[in-house]
Amino acid sequence: MRADGLAGGEGGADRLGELIPVALRAMAAGIAERGGPVPAGGPAAVAAALVAEGGELGQVTAGSGPEKLAPAADTQVAGLGAPVPSAEPVAAETGPLLSAGLPRTGVGAEAALEHLSRLLAAGSADPADPSCAAHLHCPPLAVSVAADVVASALNPSMDSWDQAPVASELEREFTAGIARLCYPHAETPDAVVTTGGTESNLLGLLLARERNPRAQPVCGANAHHSVARAAWLLGLPAPVVVPCEGDRLLPAALDGVLTPDSVVVATAGTTNTGTLDPLPEIARICRRHLARLHVDAAYGGMALCSATLKTKLDGLELADSVALDLHKFGWQPVAAGLFAAREAADLAALTVRAEYLNADDDTEAGLPDLLGRSIRTSRRPDAFRMAVTVHALGTDGLGALVERCCTTAGEVARLVSGHPGLRLWGRPELSTVVLRPVVADEAGDEAGDELVARVRRALLEAGTAVVGRAALPTGPGGENQLWLKLTLLHPHTTAEDYRPLLDRIAATAGAELVAGRESPVAS
Amino acid sequence: MRADGLAGGEGGADRLGELIPVALRAMAAGIAERGGPVPAGGPAAVAAALVAEGGELGQVTAGSGPEKLAPAADTQVAGLGAPVPSAEPVAAETGPLLSAGLPRTGVGAEAALEHLSRLLAAGSADPADPSCAAHLHCPPLAVSVAADVVASALNPSMDSWDQAPVASELEREFTAGIARLCYPHAETPDAVVTTGGTESNLLGLLLARERNPRAQPVCGANAHHSVARAAWLLGLPAPVVVPCEGDRLLPAALDGVLTPDSVVVATAGTTNTGTLDPLPEIARICRRHLARLHVDAAYGGMALCSATLKTKLDGLELADSVALDLHKFGWQPVAAGLFAAREAADLAALTVRAEYLNADDDTEAGLPDLLGRSIRTSRRPDAFRMAVTVHALGTDGLGALVERCCTTAGEVARLVSGHPGLRLWGRPELSTVVLRPVVADEAGDEAGDELVARVRRALLEAGTAVVGRAALPTGPGGENQLWLKLTLLHPHTTAEDYRPLLDRIAATAGAELVAGRESPVAS
Repeated sequence: MRADGLAGGEGGADRLGELIPVALRAMAAGIAERGGPVPAGGPAAVAAALVAEGGELGQVTAGSGPEKLAPAADTQVAGLGAPVPSAEPVAAETGPLLSAGLPRTGVGAEAALEHLSRLLAAGSADPADPSCAAHLHCPPLAVSVAADVVASALNPSMDSWDQAPVASELEREFTAGIARLCYPHAETPDAVVTTGGTESNLLGLLLARERNPRAQPVCGANAHHSVARAAWLLGLPAPVVVPCEGDRLLPAALDGVLTPDSVVVATAGTTNTGTLDPLPEIARICRRHLARLHVDAAYGGMALCSATLKTKLDGLELADSVALDLHKFGWQPVAAGLFAAREAADLAALTVRAEYLNADDDTEAGLPDLLGRSIRTSRRPDAFRMAVTVHALGTDGLGALVERCCTTAGEVARLVSGHPGLRLWGRPELSTVVLRPVVADEAGDEAGDELVARVRRALLEAGTAVVGRAALPTGPGGENQLWLKLTLLHPHTTAEDYRPLLDRIAATAGAELVAGRESPVAS
Repeated sequence: MRADGLAGGEGGADRLGELIPVALRAMAAGIAERGGPVPAGGPAAVAAALVAEGGELGQVTAGSGPEKLAPAADTQVAGLGAPVPSAEPVAAETGPLLSAGLPRTGVGAEAALEHLSRLLAAGSADPADPSCAAHLHCPPLAVSVAADVVASALNPSMDSWDQAPVASELEREFTAGIARLCYPHAETPDAVVTTGGTESNLLGLLLARERNPRAQPVCGANAHHSVARAAWLLGLPAPVVVPCEGDRLLPAALDGVLTPDSVVVATAGTTNTGTLDPLPEIARICRRHLARLHVDAAYGGMALCSATLKTKLDGLELADSVALDLHKFGWQPVAAGLFAAREAADLAALTVRAEYLNADDDTEAGLPDLLGRSIRTSRRPDAFRMAVTVHALGTDGLGALVERCCTTAGEVARLVSGHPGLRLWGRPELSTVVLRPVVADEAGDEAGDELVARVRRALLEAGTAVVGRAALPTGPGGENQLWLKLTLLHPHTTAEDYRPLLDRIAATAGAELVAGRESPVAS
């Protein structure tokens, strides 16, 4: 097949039918090679293996596929095969990866796909492995990935109707459904697609700024870093940070700081612990002070799909805007962000004219104006795979997966509570289990934190688990302590799948404690 | 297959191997159904057909696939099949698409994929059809789409190394290659991945702002609307706009406005005409005034891959930063934006700390800090499919495709020049051919513009062509006139493929002139 064959048009499906199996076979081989949740050896080993395998773009030549490689016990990196001597040594000064430049000659579509797909699979942290449980990093559903192929091939660009006729209609319909999910009783709710919670939080502050140039962000100490970053990006003052208790914003603390210029960002599912802020109370206080309210429900929002969990989000409808993120609960590949506004009119802040995309006379003649649906211009139809997923599973089906994760987290929390080597931070509200090896408590303040950090890195380096970290104010004087975190987004696991991981965490903590005593400066 | 099967992990490739063929078959069926570059009938017909076919998410039930539909001549929309009576009429007040909400019950993965993939294909404006030539909207390469499947399935998230071990290394290497392409002689160039030219231009202004809070954007009247929008988003003053001649910034005009606070945005390939600003001269003037220079090379940048075309970009290396976009020349599905900086240190403006993603002790222990590589947090590894594409074709292969498009544009321009019914704006510098029906010139100022706009909409409504528009100051007194635009990004066409389109444009203009005389208020 020609390397420059197109994915769309008449022969597109046939060409994809030839190439995608090549990529999938290579992916399966890479996954099998890895054998665990993540390649062993850490960053240096992964980078070295990449160079050694010719994954370095500037060094690859036709035929330098995996079949040329023979195992070599000494320098082998688990899952990434073995290095082979490079025919052409790379410059040492700037590091091999930065010196090569892009290759002038191609190796063809099949060879490139086979080689790099296998490398990517072998060298990935795969959230489809239950032991890859650090972050809000979900294993995507096959149905979404398959739908995305069609979106990629046809390449609708969501900045004008004549680039995305039906894609824009499907998006409009899907976002209307999302708006209605967040705001079942509002008169004119609306929603737009974003690149994730970060952009959605930025839109929350941007809409506030456009209504009031003196907008002052206010958030809890538990808020995502993207809130402060959005304020910085938008030229707004840094957020006023109010205290939390149990990773939950203290509503009483708002009373002293709110003014009609305030835009409060509450969190429905914190990144650290999955805790939800008390939305009804926060909303009441905001109303009293005429302050605006944005809720970052990037993590917890899709609990709206579950009849048993949706009460956790009571009060969400009182917010002026909401950030959602279907690449968390929603099982979409990144990106799958959404931003809902209670009043569609607020989104008028995004209005922009570009003669070539949404000229007035075109809009008057009935061509929908899409440009004001985003701060981006060209835009991938991420709504398509989200819509196909919802169509395939229904919101009930998605809600059941959310419930499954939350139930499993509750059970894993009980296992932690009963584990002699581990301590539980608190009962999970969503699907995050926060825990600490008891030997870390015994090691003392700073040494305990170092130990926790080392346990996480040791598991990562060994290639046996990807576990997260969370700094929480649990020290005797309220100072931060470092905890380990399991964010359970795998929809098909049970608590038993995590029991070996808990044992390994405890055992690794014991081993690191010993190693730390023997060599106290080791990190 | 279960609707909730995962794309990654051990069985992921098998599940994708079952579902992707379903999606591809439906895509091929939809493309065949459409039969042309775009569905006929315009927005109302596309929306109506969607509802009628049960594409409306809230109304679809299991088994409501295309096989249930029978053709009905009267209300049929080309390419979208025929409407069937809806069992459950939708509310009229807010329009059918906005009333439904998301479906609670799913139809399964296969049915959802089959149904919506066919709808998307039938209702798309497909840039793989040569007559879909309005925008910088490319037909993607199959190799890139296939590579993206693996990225979607494994779902590396580029905000921390433990979510993207080898993906982050591949990105680092790819962006280093791009930086070197833009800055072959700089000491420490660097580049990051963005969502497109819009975000890249925003980064250009953001980096300027972070070096100088008094930064004042300056650009030509030919600059992309995203420059003014970025200034607005960042809280910077609106750009000072300097005049152009022939859609090219007049460097002499800069001399009167530049100060050391200025950040000039020059354009290497305008959206309207593909014209390149005189970069060496602009760079010289910027240096003289100690002004910063960002070049929006979203369209023209990849001409750097062609030995014969790269001289058009002479002077690019003198810019402080550059916007590139491989979803234009580069044949990637959206998004594929890049931003290169001459000095890596400038990118330090993006530095941000989030304890759970890039804690200091993790960074000290060798875990790469990825968070400062973007203004996003979770981030899809778009670099992977770009890297696979470059690996497959080489930069020479990509450069040859760029040359092909530019050569074809030159030949189409000659066809326009020789066409009795058309007038050429000017010789293409890249791959954009700007033309005007001569009857529009004869119709007078305002009537001529209206005619041009109507021709474009008539072709779109008929489903026979997607042609762009450009307002250019060619009126007798320098006022704007409306032109038609062909942006040729199809890498496998020749000028002959566009001859019927040129004839159709001229004929449609004649027909619209007659229609306009008969009914002058029609739009």
